[in-house]
Parts: sequence; structure tokens; C-alpha cells
Amino acid sequence: MEGRVLSIQSHVAFGYVGGKAAAFPLQCLNYDVDVVNTVNFSNHAGYGRSGGSKTSAAELESIFDAMEFNELLDPARLLTGYTPNAEALTAVAKLARKLRERKPELVYLLDPVMGDAGRLYVAPDVIPVYRTMLPLSTIITPNWFEVETLTDITLTDMPSLRRALAKLHKDFGVPNVAISSIPLKPWLSETLPLSIRPPFASESGYLLCISSSASPEDTPKVHAQCVPLLAGYFSGVGDLFSSLVLAHYNPSDTSRTESRTPFSQAVSQALTKTHAVLCETFRHSEQLPEEERFATDDEKDEVEPLRKVRRMRGRELRLVQSIDIIRGQFNDATRHLETWTGFWDN
Amino acid sequence: MEGRVLSIQSHVAFGYVGGKAAAFPLQCLNYDVDVVNTVNFSNHAGYGRSGGSKTSAAELESIFDAMEFNELLDPARLLTGYTPNAEALTAVAKLARKLRERKPELVYLLDPVMGDAGRLYVAPDVIPVYRTMLPLSTIITPNWFEVETLTDITLTDMPSLRRALAKLHKDFGVPNVAISSIPLKPWLSETLPLSIRPPFASESGYLLCISSSASPEDTPKVHAQCVPLLAGYFSGVGDLFSSLVLAHYNPSDTSRTESRTPFSQAVSQALTKTHAVLCETFRHSEQLPEEERFATDDEKDEVEPLRKVRRMRGRELRLVQSIDIIRGQFNDATRHLETWTGFWDN
Repeated sequence: MEGRVLSIQSHVAFGYVGGKAAAFPLQCLNYDVDVVNTVNFSNHAGYGRSGGSKTSAAELESIFDAMEFNELLDPARLLTGYTPNAEALTAVAKLARKLRERKPELVYLLDPVMGDAGRLYVAPDVIPVYRTMLPLSTIITPNWFEVETLTDITLTDMPSLRRALAKLHKDFGVPNVAISSIPLKPWLSETLPLSIRPPFASESGYLLCISSSASPEDTPKVHAQCVPLLAGYFSGVGDLFSSLVLAHYNPSDTSRTESRTPFSQAVSQALTKTHAVLCETFRHSEQLPEEERFATDDEKDEVEPLRKVRRMRGRELRLVQSIDIIRGQFNDATRHLETWTGFWDN
Repeated sequence: MEGRVLSIQSHVAFGYVGGKAAAFPLQCLNYDVDVVNTVNFSNHAGYGRSGGSKTSAAELESIFDAMEFNELLDPARLLTGYTPNAEALTAVAKLARKLRERKPELVYLLDPVMGDAGRLYVAPDVIPVYRTMLPLSTIITPNWFEVETLTDITLTDMPSLRRALAKLHKDFGVPNVAISSIPLKPWLSETLPLSIRPPFASESGYLLCISSSASPEDTPKVHAQCVPLLAGYFSGVGDLFSSLVLAHYNPSDTSRTESRTPFSQAVSQALTKTHAVLCETFRHSEQLPEEERFATDDEKDEVEPLRKVRRMRGRELRLVQSIDIIRGQFNDATRHLETWTGFWDN
């Protein structure tokens, strides 16, 4: 596949999150990428300190207006991610609406970056803006916490998960939802078909990835797969995953079978490659000197900020070194998402 | 080769100049690239209109300071390019000095982007700042006009060219100079060794590339090669060339022979690949509909600004499509720079 992607998300000078995690993979997969930076920071927030500035709504609009004047606003695909406040996000939303109205076949991947593990890292007034953007999307890639935030449903059991997915598809009109890196809680793994479920003893050692595609005549098709959990927190993984979902999604593929949809295939590719890049990153970080891989310890990190800084630096994605993985020139078997039989059964 | 490059230059959302022309090739050649944006524009200036903003000196310093605090300022290589005003360039110069003092083996490619074809496109007070930066560099890649501007020598004949190169090496302490895309004036081609000189009838159809490496015990080694001129103006070519020179320069290569230096080899690789990418871009632009490839005509462009805009858009570098060229997986013979015998003879 080829074409032009307009990517609107964060920029960091050092390391790989946001646009830096997304542009290179998309480029390696033959997409021209137009890169609009919602912030210009030195490094990601996990380091504890960063320099640089946020792009104002007026600056974003000035960029979009000039691109419009120069007839440069005709991407085949749109990718939006971290945008720090409601004013800037409203400018992005306005652009997304214009592009959607102009081109019904636009493939728009909206990553509603708001927070993780129970904690918001954007201003709360961003949430309602994202809700207005959902109907414009082709694909969304929220994490578990972002699904809860968007739907206002706490995910505690299968009925709540079904309600949340149904709400995203029906009330918000989202055609495709992918949720990755889900901790495999017992109520989830118990419901998984045996073909997807990991060996009992190691459930806590796995993460779940779910894809759900709306179907005009039926309930949405839900697929899932587990991948081994790698210890430690790595930044930019979700941004890489989203860019690969977008890169591999082929809407003109009509091979919709019982076990695969074009979307589940894209998510399978993204999951496989993201996991392989993460393994390469994990292996690299394990080989660093001890002082660059101290485990997370909030008390010690507080006293000695460079502990955290060095851990973060050692865990930056090995993206450039993974060019063959990104281009599919490697030997790992594809981690296919499989049909979650009975997902919608009460 | 591998390592980390800190690249400090312009950013455009659409198209390939500055950092957008440099980062992808460096990444494809296995370098981690830290990207600091001196401007954040919608598109390059050739379109006639652009949106966005310049990064202030204070913002640049805030990024550098946070990187320093987080121990992220340890690149093996430094690449600096377009910086719009003296205040911002002074912040870049301060950083370059710090990195040079910290690491004598730093490979610093300074592209003194100031203008072209007799016209400055930065504030004039940038010129003296660049002069103070020259002694910090390992490599500089000025164009013809920038050599004249830096040295204050108008290049009209071989003696003036010799004086200018000697001044760069001796007075400014620059170890390596590469000048590409030089119009092949008669006084140049007449002096070229026959092995480099193009067929007489087609001299105006060629551009010259010169490399000059200082030698501790001898006059600098000058090499040169001609490449066919492709009609029309393409933006970002110099930025791509510089990034490839930096990527291919191997200072630990000790194979300095009569006919090759490590620097002439790097310039040969950069010249070969840049020309191949340009050919691919030229071929693509020739296939566009007529209204996207109107020739330059200042009068008509004035009346109908979209004429120019569409021409610019059709001539953006086909960088992503040239990934195999960048990675050296193509069949063109290397355009080796050859020794310019007798260059220093009066």
C-alpha cells in the first residue's frame, strides 16, 4: 500500500513517542508522512523533566490554513494523537471534520490519548472534545483506561465490556476499535476461547489485544490475541502500534471471512511487529550497565532523579534498529487475532 | 556504521527539506536521530506562502537544557542546518561548542544555510555567527554562494577558488569542505582533469561537486566529479546531500590513498545517492498532469500563485519511495570523486 498520511501528534527531540514513533514506520512502509507537531519537547514526560513548548491552537491553525491554501491538505489517511489541551484539540477536530466531509473514503485513525492506568495526562476538558471526534473516525486505538473515560463505563466484567464496545460502535459511530496491552484479568481470560487463552499458570504474564469491527447486518466482530508481557514500562509502544494499524489497514480488501476481517488482519500485523520491536528493545535494555536499568522505585527515584532518567533512556524503542521488522523482513510467525466466539453472549 | 545524530534544522509538515530531508535517510542508515526543529512551518518557502512559527532562542535553550539535565546530549555526530536568525543560531553555536569541547572525536557537519544564487534567505547578522562556528566543524557543505559569503571572496577564476578553499581550511580551521551543485563555468571545466571533464558540447548540462580535505603535511586533497543537470529547481537536495555525507563519513577509515580519502568516499556515496533520488523525483514530476509542472515564469506565477504552488508540490523529493537507493540496494555505479590533479598549481 502507499499514499499520504497526515500525522498530528507530539514531537520529542530525543527518543520515540508520538510522531517520532509513528513517522519512521509509516515511511518505511511506503507512506509519505506529513508531520504536524502538537508539542515540541526535548523528551517524553516519563523522564520527569522536559524542555520546549506546546503548539498553540493559533499556530496549528496557521499551519493548516497555509496547507489548505497550497492545496496540501489531501491526505489518504489521517492519524491524530497526543494533543495537550482542549483548544488545540478543537483545532485538530475542525480539520478532521473538514477532511472527512471532503473525502468520505478517508481512513482516519484517532488515538484518543488521555492517560493510562487510572491517571489522566491531558487537561480534563479534552475528554468531551474527543467524544465529538469519535464519529469522524475509521479506527480508534484507546487503551483500557481511555475506553472507560470515553464511555463513562468502568470495565469490571464482560457485561460492562460489551456495553462499552457497543456504545463506541453504536452511540459514537466508531467503525473499528483496537485495544492493546490489556492486563489479562481473570474475568477476561475465563471468557476467552481456549484457542486464545494462555496457559493457566502464566495468565499474569500475558497482555490481551482486542479488535472489534462494526458489521452493518450483525453484532460487531470481536477478535483477540494474547502476547507475552515484558517486564517494565516502555514509552511510545501505543503510538507505534497505532501507526502500524493504520499502515496495514486495507479498506479495499473484501476478504471478510468468518475468522478474519480487514481490520483484524491489520491489528494482527501491528501486534506482531510491535511485539517484535518491543522484544528487541527489551533485549537491548537488559544488556545495559546496571545503573541504566534500575527497577522502578518511587522512593529511590525521588531522591535520585537520574535513576529514573537513565531507566527511561535505556528503554527508548529500538525503532531504527528494527527496520527489517517494520518492513516485514523477519521470521516471527504472525500473531493472528482469532474470533472471540461467544463474546456477545450473555 | 551506527550511532546517534543530533540534527538541528527546519521542520516542515509537508514535503522534504531540512530535518524532513535528513532524518529519514539517516534512520534508514541505522542512525538514531535526535531532531530539534528551528522552525515549525507548513511547507518550504518556495511555495510563496507558509504557516507556523520559528523556534525562539529561549525555546531552543530550554530543549537543550532539559536534554543536558537528562543526560541526553551525547551524540556521536552533530548536524546543523537552517536557523533563521542570529539569536537562535547563537544558541546552536553555544551547544556545538559544548559538544565539541566535551568530545574531540565528535563528527560535526555544519551546513551554513544562508542563501543561493546570489540571494540571502536568512538575516544578514547570521553570517558572522557562522564564521565563529566554522572552527568547530568536521565537515561543512556550503553551496557556491555560501562559500563566497563566508570567505568574502567572489569566485571568478581558479586563483579565487584556491584562495577561498585555503581560507576555509587555514583561517577558519575547517577540516573537510564539500560543495555540490556547482554550475560548470568554462574556467572550471577548462581546469578539470580530462577524467572528470564532461563532453565539451554538454558542459552546461552538468553540475560539479568538489570535496577538499585538509592534510596536515601537504596542501588539501581536492577531488571532484560531474553529474548531469536535471532541469528545474528541486528543494531539499542540499539537505539530503549533507545528511548522506554525514552518514557515510567514516573517520576511523585509515585507507587514505593518492586517489581516495575517507571524506571523498563519503561525498562520492552522497553524490551518487542524491543524484539517484533526484532522478527518481524528476521522472515522477515529468509524469504529472500538465498543470502541476508548468515551467517557472515569474510573470505568470505572479498572476496565478497556484501555478508555482503546484510546481513545488510536484517537485518534492521522492524520498520515501527511494528507500532502496538510500540503503544502497540499487544498481547505479558509484560516482566516485576523482583527484583534481594540479588543482593547487598556479
